[in-house]
Amino acid sequence: MPIIDYAIYVIAGDGDLEEGVSAEASSLAGHLALDNLIVIYDDNHITIDGDTNLAFSEDAARRYKAYGWRVIEVPGDGNNMEAFEKALKKAKREKERPTLIKLRTHIAYGSPNKQDTAGAHGSPLGEDEIKLIKKNYGWDPEKSFVVPDEVLAHTRKAGDRGKRAERKWNKMFEKYAEAYPELAQQFRDASDGKLSINLDELLPNFETSSSIATRKASGAVLDAVMPQLPLVLGGSADLTPSNLTKFNGAEDFQQDKRSGRYIRYGIREHAMGAIMNGISASGLTRAYGGTFLVFSDYMRPAIRMAALSRHPTIFVFTHDSIGVGEDGPTHQPVEHVAALRAIPDLMVFRPADANETAQVWKFVLKHRDGPVALCLTRQGLSVLDQSKYGSAANVSKGAYVLIDVDNPDVLLLSTGSEIGVALAAYEKLQAEGINARVVSMPCWELFEKQPQEYKDSVLLPSVKVRIGIEAGVEHGWGKWLGSKGTFIGMSTFGASAPAKVCFEKFGITVEKVVEAAKKSIAS
Amino acid sequence: MPIIDYAIYVIAGDGDLEEGVSAEASSLAGHLALDNLIVIYDDNHITIDGDTNLAFSEDAARRYKAYGWRVIEVPGDGNNMEAFEKALKKAKREKERPTLIKLRTHIAYGSPNKQDTAGAHGSPLGEDEIKLIKKNYGWDPEKSFVVPDEVLAHTRKAGDRGKRAERKWNKMFEKYAEAYPELAQQFRDASDGKLSINLDELLPNFETSSSIATRKASGAVLDAVMPQLPLVLGGSADLTPSNLTKFNGAEDFQQDKRSGRYIRYGIREHAMGAIMNGISASGLTRAYGGTFLVFSDYMRPAIRMAALSRHPTIFVFTHDSIGVGEDGPTHQPVEHVAALRAIPDLMVFRPADANETAQVWKFVLKHRDGPVALCLTRQGLSVLDQSKYGSAANVSKGAYVLIDVDNPDVLLLSTGSEIGVALAAYEKLQAEGINARVVSMPCWELFEKQPQEYKDSVLLPSVKVRIGIEAGVEHGWGKWLGSKGTFIGMSTFGASAPAKVCFEKFGITVEKVVEAAKKSIAS
Repeated sequence: MPIIDYAIYVIAGDGDLEEGVSAEASSLAGHLALDNLIVIYDDNHITIDGDTNLAFSEDAARRYKAYGWRVIEVPGDGNNMEAFEKALKKAKREKERPTLIKLRTHIAYGSPNKQDTAGAHGSPLGEDEIKLIKKNYGWDPEKSFVVPDEVLAHTRKAGDRGKRAERKWNKMFEKYAEAYPELAQQFRDASDGKLSINLDELLPNFETSSSIATRKASGAVLDAVMPQLPLVLGGSADLTPSNLTKFNGAEDFQQDKRSGRYIRYGIREHAMGAIMNGISASGLTRAYGGTFLVFSDYMRPAIRMAALSRHPTIFVFTHDSIGVGEDGPTHQPVEHVAALRAIPDLMVFRPADANETAQVWKFVLKHRDGPVALCLTRQGLSVLDQSKYGSAANVSKGAYVLIDVDNPDVLLLSTGSEIGVALAAYEKLQAEGINARVVSMPCWELFEKQPQEYKDSVLLPSVKVRIGIEAGVEHGWGKWLGSKGTFIGMSTFGASAPAKVCFEKFGITVEKVVEAAKKSIAS
Repeated sequence: MPIIDYAIYVIAGDGDLEEGVSAEASSLAGHLALDNLIVIYDDNHITIDGDTNLAFSEDAARRYKAYGWRVIEVPGDGNNMEAFEKALKKAKREKERPTLIKLRTHIAYGSPNKQDTAGAHGSPLGEDEIKLIKKNYGWDPEKSFVVPDEVLAHTRKAGDRGKRAERKWNKMFEKYAEAYPELAQQFRDASDGKLSINLDELLPNFETSSSIATRKASGAVLDAVMPQLPLVLGGSADLTPSNLTKFNGAEDFQQDKRSGRYIRYGIREHAMGAIMNGISASGLTRAYGGTFLVFSDYMRPAIRMAALSRHPTIFVFTHDSIGVGEDGPTHQPVEHVAALRAIPDLMVFRPADANETAQVWKFVLKHRDGPVALCLTRQGLSVLDQSKYGSAANVSKGAYVLIDVDNPDVLLLSTGSEIGVALAAYEKLQAEGINARVVSMPCWELFEKQPQEYKDSVLLPSVKVRIGIEAGVEHGWGKWLGSKGTFIGMSTFGASAPAKVCFEKFGITVEKVVEAAKKSIAS
């Protein structure tokens, strides 16, 4: 039973065809032969600067054919309704390719002075011109907000059609639920945003003695949970073996494999972000996708859109610092965690070890009100001993005390891979009679939402000596460090060298933390 | 005399063809008929995830033809040197279009186990495999870093050819300098990074009584200076009437107008950023280009690349806050100034009025060691009275005291359009017997570089009551505000309403600043 068989319509202008993201998405749509995708290209020849031929003279139809699309050029212009309807019907019948319908239109159609001009693009037409248009159409130029009766009657028919279609679909779904009760329940749960699995049972528990990169821990989580989450789609922008986003048993979603749940986005980060938003916007399905953290820049508009529209998209960013090593500064993010934290309504996670990573995923899978970004290491990290340190389950509070002593002289605040540095500094300071408290801060946005009481219990307002440690720029840390704080991290781009050498050369070391703590206490 | 007649060669892989930025740039290159652009498409069928056909099956040659390019497909593969050389010669002779040379290649050519596999993409081949390759080529597998004599001799010929070409060019340039002494001097000055105009004479001085948007002030500066800067190219990503980037007398750079200095980038922000970097990397020419600040996200990888490579690219971002008004949250940047400030070696300017804007341009035109971003308002701002307030020339120090009183109780720190709010709050506080100092901070990065003494003289370490005011997110302000500071700005996305209503509803008002100052003093 075709409980989901709708077509996706896109109305696109020349600007949309010029933007790189649509080139990426269209190439992939052609590759995947998405036959239910219908793009109506509103080809009006006008941009804000003037005629499109100022900057755009390619053969768009030929380009889309090169992508493997069907292209239908509507004869005449956008007012040739009969031809347009015919084109739409053809497109709906198409079963092998996406379709681009090229429709020559006229901006501000019917406006005596502004039709086919850039003047109609960026600004309102103005009262006088609106009156002239109405006159031109044979309407009363003095009346506003008029809906002629025949238009009202015609439009209300659409409501009736919709009601009939809904009744029909509901009946079909009833039959579907009888035939496939489990699948129907899955559908209902997904619609309701219910997670019908027991995450605590499924999530792996990582042994303290091991060293494991958080990207690997993330991969292990996906192996464990994804077989139970049939409506979640994974993928990567051609970094699968690095992002470790392909779960055990995953099959590629391809032209000949529509049941596959792993999308090969190709080297197209921006389209990946936008497509994941589309998948997550459906209310039924959800998507995660991987790339290097440094490439989050390529998909930033999609991340912003997810935050603005509250899509529960999951951005998996691995290789999250100079710890990347030899690939060098082009591949070493230093400003990206800070830049992501600047986006409202995006939750940015940087877990400290494998078990924090599992807890981040636990939170993420339950969280449906907006996007999340996971920042994960390439390099191995010691798995923290939860009998000695605070429990990783505290990830859900955004920040928590990892280890403490009575009357701390200094707070060591850190995230991700630098928690190891903070803990070693704690030991060293302890040996020198200095009391440090170590706070893990995997998600600032979650911590901000905690009651003031909890926040004060973690950050102890009376302790002014604070060291922030993160292998990224200081930007944003001032808030936690206050006037007397010191930041140990990056202030420049990285360099090409093994991770260990990078950390040493850029001064993100136990010695530097101890030195800064002592200096700050003494001052 | 052809003192500049080189071709631009690009070696591109499948990843480059998949990325949106190359689609944007290639479409524009076709439109502009850049006949000296030659792209060699290294078509090796392999990406990190595996065969390119996992995600990429478009007809690339047909796509480039659609862009208006000449496409030459080399028969056989990348080892058919004769055919490849022939293709290069054809491409160099081409006088009407850019050329794409499609060259079927084999990754890890000659490697018995890794040729044509993804294993050769992301990781080193390994010592054993390298020995096998050497054996395969008939080389001694035990020797490393060997350059056979005949290769050395052949390569050194290239050095000789280069020397001859340089001598020839130098002679030509001597003749050129005799024939066109002024143009030759211009060329030499540009090579030396010299600015041979008197900016103080050229820059407009804005009257105190007027209200003017900083984008308009920027436009007036460009009108004044650009006719004197023949090696600077302007442009916009289809927002010319909004960015006000087209200077008086500017002509478009087009296929039939190579002397034009204004580039219509179309709706292609990412390509604009990348192309500006290319122009600015030449060491002779320099580029500025405009778009809305919110669209800086689209070109972020290019901004980063400019910072990393120290290209003196000038990013002009107008419509810099909720002051954009009715276009609403999709067009209202709230996190972008913060996110740009996170990028190392990028200078971010947010001038407070027309005269600060002129001073920013003065600094920018002299600054050649890295990129700058100008964040400019859509809405009008009062031009500050420099007889009453600190001089706008202080912009070069990054931050300065705008107005002061003895023994300030509170520091009001602000940038851009919110300086008006800070100054009005100053007056109101003054009337209530509270002493405020107002500090304008148009460029944090420049301020950071000042001597500690100057910084302390501006920020007065003893004054802990500080209010930061900026129509963006708080992220990054903690550094200036310290533990007792308060931030007045945005914590969410914006909304669609007239600018005034937005500022009111989001609480960026004189009343809120006064209230925060009093509360903080009392606590």
